[in-house]
Amino acid sequence: MDYSSLKRFLLLATGTFLLLLFAHFSFHLPSNPPFSRSSPFLFHSPSVNTAKPASRNHETDIVSHPLDPLTIQEINIARSILLSYSPFSSSPSSLTIHSLSLDEPDKSVVRSWKPGNSLPARKAVAVTRYKDKPYVLSIDLSTKEVVQLPVPDSGYPTMTIEDMMSAPWAPFSDKAFNATITARGVRMSDVACLPISLGWYGQTEEGRRLIKIQCYSAEGTANFYMRPIEGLTVLLDMDTKEVVEITDKGNGIPIPSSTNTDYRYAVTKNNRAAWLKAPNPISLEQPSGPSFTVSEGHQVKWAGWDFHIKADARAGIIISGLGIIDPETGTRREVMYKGFVSELFVPYMDPTNAWYFKTYMDAGEYGFGLQAMPLVPLNDCPRNAYYLDGVFVTADGKPYVRENMICLFEKYSGDIAWRHSECPITDMEIKEARPKVTLVARMSASVANYDYIVDWEFQTDGLIRMKVALSGILMVKGTSYTHTKDVPSGEDMYGTLLSENVIGVIHDHFITFRLDMDVDGPANSFARVKLTRQATASGESPRTSFLKATRHVAATEKEAQVKLALYKPEEFHVYNTEKTTRVGNPTGYKVVSAGTAASMLDPNDPPQLRGAFTNNQIWITPYNKSEEWAGGLFVYQSKGEDTLSVWADRNRPIENKDIVLWYTLGFHHVPCQEDFPIMPTVSSSFDLKPVNFFEKNPVLWLPPNQEKDLPVCTATATA
Amino acid sequence: MDYSSLKRFLLLATGTFLLLLFAHFSFHLPSNPPFSRSSPFLFHSPSVNTAKPASRNHETDIVSHPLDPLTIQEINIARSILLSYSPFSSSPSSLTIHSLSLDEPDKSVVRSWKPGNSLPARKAVAVTRYKDKPYVLSIDLSTKEVVQLPVPDSGYPTMTIEDMMSAPWAPFSDKAFNATITARGVRMSDVACLPISLGWYGQTEEGRRLIKIQCYSAEGTANFYMRPIEGLTVLLDMDTKEVVEITDKGNGIPIPSSTNTDYRYAVTKNNRAAWLKAPNPISLEQPSGPSFTVSEGHQVKWAGWDFHIKADARAGIIISGLGIIDPETGTRREVMYKGFVSELFVPYMDPTNAWYFKTYMDAGEYGFGLQAMPLVPLNDCPRNAYYLDGVFVTADGKPYVRENMICLFEKYSGDIAWRHSECPITDMEIKEARPKVTLVARMSASVANYDYIVDWEFQTDGLIRMKVALSGILMVKGTSYTHTKDVPSGEDMYGTLLSENVIGVIHDHFITFRLDMDVDGPANSFARVKLTRQATASGESPRTSFLKATRHVAATEKEAQVKLALYKPEEFHVYNTEKTTRVGNPTGYKVVSAGTAASMLDPNDPPQLRGAFTNNQIWITPYNKSEEWAGGLFVYQSKGEDTLSVWADRNRPIENKDIVLWYTLGFHHVPCQEDFPIMPTVSSSFDLKPVNFFEKNPVLWLPPNQEKDLPVCTATATA
Repeated sequence: MDYSSLKRFLLLATGTFLLLLFAHFSFHLPSNPPFSRSSPFLFHSPSVNTAKPASRNHETDIVSHPLDPLTIQEINIARSILLSYSPFSSSPSSLTIHSLSLDEPDKSVVRSWKPGNSLPARKAVAVTRYKDKPYVLSIDLSTKEVVQLPVPDSGYPTMTIEDMMSAPWAPFSDKAFNATITARGVRMSDVACLPISLGWYGQTEEGRRLIKIQCYSAEGTANFYMRPIEGLTVLLDMDTKEVVEITDKGNGIPIPSSTNTDYRYAVTKNNRAAWLKAPNPISLEQPSGPSFTVSEGHQVKWAGWDFHIKADARAGIIISGLGIIDPETGTRREVMYKGFVSELFVPYMDPTNAWYFKTYMDAGEYGFGLQAMPLVPLNDCPRNAYYLDGVFVTADGKPYVRENMICLFEKYSGDIAWRHSECPITDMEIKEARPKVTLVARMSASVANYDYIVDWEFQTDGLIRMKVALSGILMVKGTSYTHTKDVPSGEDMYGTLLSENVIGVIHDHFITFRLDMDVDGPANSFARVKLTRQATASGESPRTSFLKATRHVAATEKEAQVKLALYKPEEFHVYNTEKTTRVGNPTGYKVVSAGTAASMLDPNDPPQLRGAFTNNQIWITPYNKSEEWAGGLFVYQSKGEDTLSVWADRNRPIENKDIVLWYTLGFHHVPCQEDFPIMPTVSSSFDLKPVNFFEKNPVLWLPPNQEKDLPVCTATATA
Repeated sequence: MDYSSLKRFLLLATGTFLLLLFAHFSFHLPSNPPFSRSSPFLFHSPSVNTAKPASRNHETDIVSHPLDPLTIQEINIARSILLSYSPFSSSPSSLTIHSLSLDEPDKSVVRSWKPGNSLPARKAVAVTRYKDKPYVLSIDLSTKEVVQLPVPDSGYPTMTIEDMMSAPWAPFSDKAFNATITARGVRMSDVACLPISLGWYGQTEEGRRLIKIQCYSAEGTANFYMRPIEGLTVLLDMDTKEVVEITDKGNGIPIPSSTNTDYRYAVTKNNRAAWLKAPNPISLEQPSGPSFTVSEGHQVKWAGWDFHIKADARAGIIISGLGIIDPETGTRREVMYKGFVSELFVPYMDPTNAWYFKTYMDAGEYGFGLQAMPLVPLNDCPRNAYYLDGVFVTADGKPYVRENMICLFEKYSGDIAWRHSECPITDMEIKEARPKVTLVARMSASVANYDYIVDWEFQTDGLIRMKVALSGILMVKGTSYTHTKDVPSGEDMYGTLLSENVIGVIHDHFITFRLDMDVDGPANSFARVKLTRQATASGESPRTSFLKATRHVAATEKEAQVKLALYKPEEFHVYNTEKTTRVGNPTGYKVVSAGTAASMLDPNDPPQLRGAFTNNQIWITPYNKSEEWAGGLFVYQSKGEDTLSVWADRNRPIENKDIVLWYTLGFHHVPCQEDFPIMPTVSSSFDLKPVNFFEKNPVLWLPPNQEKDLPVCTATATA
């Protein structure tokens, strides 16, 4: 594959001259020296001002924790082992490495490991394809032993970046494609195309990796997504680059105008209306530095919390070994062994030819971490943020660094941790309030048009909030309509007319978290505390009804499959079966749902079979190291044979066991004009909240803010 | 009523010596000169540092807007008119003034008023009782004309502060009460009592205002709420102070210990464990000052938004005349005429003798604004906050000032307004992100034990978030149990054992907002956009199903009564019937629900009849000036004859009309030990979100943060 010509194409296709200058900064292509940065290694102690991005020389990384990701050196070792592994050694160029990451030691080994202990054997797990045959291999980096692991019956591994970058380019050498584009009145030099996973609908030709290519005109805007060449779909063989089929149902559908589509500051600042004034500068300031420490690059400590954090090519952020110090006793208590985004499911709601297949599973198909770009200091994260990099692998096994992929910062928004004033009724002079400060770990994945912002927020009171925000750019549909009055009544646009010739198609977003809870250790159970109306016996009370809480412990997986319902309120407790509080309550954490959405698709519709992990909002499974990816290990073109739903329907016992909690956060998105040409952030979240985990309010001790402790600030000289 | 002895009692009862020094600061009793502050009037322009609380001499207040609340002078005028009004004039001491506030001019008058116009006639509306007979009077302050308005058939007005302060004191002169307390082993000097509204259960004696008094031991703690003298209930006549009945079912139930109950910093700071370290100072800083202005005390302008804000004795915060400048055209557009918390409903879920009647309606019974105490600078609101006062009225009609009742501040939490990066697929060098800054108006009401924090949050993208956070102290029940193992199986505690002898009783919170929407003016309709599964015709598509949006316009009130359901997803649009966007979409705002809870009580249970406004989460009614209080004008001992539910069941037409949106935010609260002895904040919210209101993303123009614009801060000298 020819990167320089690909770059040249993209340059033309996007019409931005910045590209030539900066294209290599965001993604180190193997063709460039990826690790040319010479900046010295910095150990970030709390006294270090961490406002600057962490600039670390990953060549010098040291492994200090069993869960530390593979270093550059380890990746190179693993790669050389793979290249000399039979059969790969006979034709190394026929080998594609789809992922190469740490093969984590067994949970029991990690849980018993203590700082100072020698590290368990370092192993890598590689997902590769050699001459079209998939391999999943565990590689011992010291003994160089390679063990073949089971391979799923259907589907393909996550696409490589090279797959995604080369596929859109392939049709350009096809005469028919050129003819079609020209027939649509678009200059080839203005064309930008996207690689779109095509799911599985029974008819997919077996035994080949296919992808659908759809194209846009980038003429006059960097936001080519708003200018679809509607109805044109190229079916491509991802490996041979053969154009299997070209479909163009878009004749007569104009390309939407580029007017008002560019969102870049360089463009908008020049035509900002006189009446629009930006707010005065406001900033989160902590000049004495953050309160958290990041040791050896991955081990975070803050306000009693400690955890291991790392970047993962598929999941994005992985949080491991989460524990918190009990304020009563000073002892550390376990909460969660491992938590991450396991899969996404994004079905669009247009059944027509060029749209029906758009049912993305972004983690398993595109790599949620691979798409996580460097965060923008001062804008993606506040000034007091600390940044972590990711180290990923190209298709030929070479390591590269994704800079500033994760940020960590303390957050204070003016909210209140707890408060009480005595009121005029008692008129006691009590006015106690405490500011709420939290720790946020953030990443943002840009899966082509869409941007997902994932926050892990840790509160001093023991609550953990998983928040997902959506921004970025809609996937829009071209139409000949320029006004709703032109739309024949009864005709379904499958969305909203956002601008002349532009339809925002209705779609859902589902983000499924895998949360391996270890509340005070692995011996956990799951209880559904059902709140139901209880009628009083006649004469028992002037009341005829009240709300009664009844605790039901789920014995098996099916008893723990939850469809939320406002009029069937429940609490969902993961609790320890051996430990209680002083007065006898089981120590637990509860899942607290906020706004969410459920999939409304037919459970037997092929996309819903593949996305069956969204059939419930909550699932509980017994711990199984091999059950990490809710849509299956191989999601690309999968048939739904290896999903959370399939595993859980085995209905295994889950009582008093090491259990895993799965939660799916959902959004229905009916686009509106405010989403054009780029969307204001929409977010939702869910919480893990301590429930009788602590003996009492764990933040009673928090001191109030006092003027003398706050920073002294002046407006900047340039203000 | 003897204030000094009441103070002495409370001093003993709470054991805090601060009280004697400061008791008068939080609530100016008529017996003190209420307005002794001499600090000069400050006009807060954006260039003024508003970190300091606003300290205004309300004697000099000038009325500059038709909706400005009554000034001290106006209250004094209204009072003198009332006192000389026949029949009151014959015995002024028999007159009780339950509320005295602005009688707002007709909506049409206010909407057509422009700055510079002369003000419409200033009128006050008084709710009074004279010789046990209620009067609702409109008083013209210039003509001195008094008009009697209709009086509800049942119920009583909101209690006066004097009612609430004197009732708990009344039983102390009763021998039987003293005997009971002594029999429970509590010293009279340690007793603190609360006035508890008793609702209505059919049996209430007619024609008298009754209240139930329950008591606590304040020995050894300021948090007497954790030490109930369980089972003791005194039924009291609020007017005669006659003890009607004493019930004590608490024999054998010990008073819980005071251990670990005090939460005040003065106490906790001395026994903080060594391993607990507060986070380093962090602060919201904007040294060049806020971007908002507050003109004439009530008119707020920020980032295109403008509205009128005032404190109200019953509702707390009232937001009026909300509009926003369209970034496309620079013209101002109406969004909402008036919004406020109309009522609360807080039923406890224990049907037994001492608990069944606890079904509070905090706004109509206690006064949500009357209970809103001064906010604590740096802790209730961040350093950059600006504070507004309230002016209220005592039972004899004298005005007093509630200082710092509302704060306004710009909020930046490190969140993102919108973003997009191009990903490795296209590898274009685009990294655009914008920080999210919002404006918050906040109050906190302490209704005895509970604290409600109400935020109105305004976003630059046109979204309005109504957020309610709960903190403060649980209303707990004494028990003889000290461990869950002592509880006989099958016995219902109606809650959770929080500590030895302390049960946190299950309860709900419902907060009902009245939102008089005027989206681009009063000609509005309400549409339910239903998202339903649509099956494809055979052969139509490889997909068998998709999600289809269908718009149903509600013609009458009943068609707009919404019970939310996750598996019946809908959007709820209030839209203008005369105005559309360029491409023909009706301009609207949608209600976006987040986490909420529904009342599960029997609809015919007396408390639910009174709280029937919680029967749906969303209601729409045609505008009616007299329909402001969802539980009725007279809520105390009401029978549910005058609620939102009764009005809306008339099923009036609401299409293409001036309509009012009602939204109820709910919480189920099953207490846990973390809520003892004071609760970490729990919050939820709902949004009003523009939907095709703007032609495109209204914050496209926002500039990114740049280092040169941010403040220069240093840790404080003492750090």
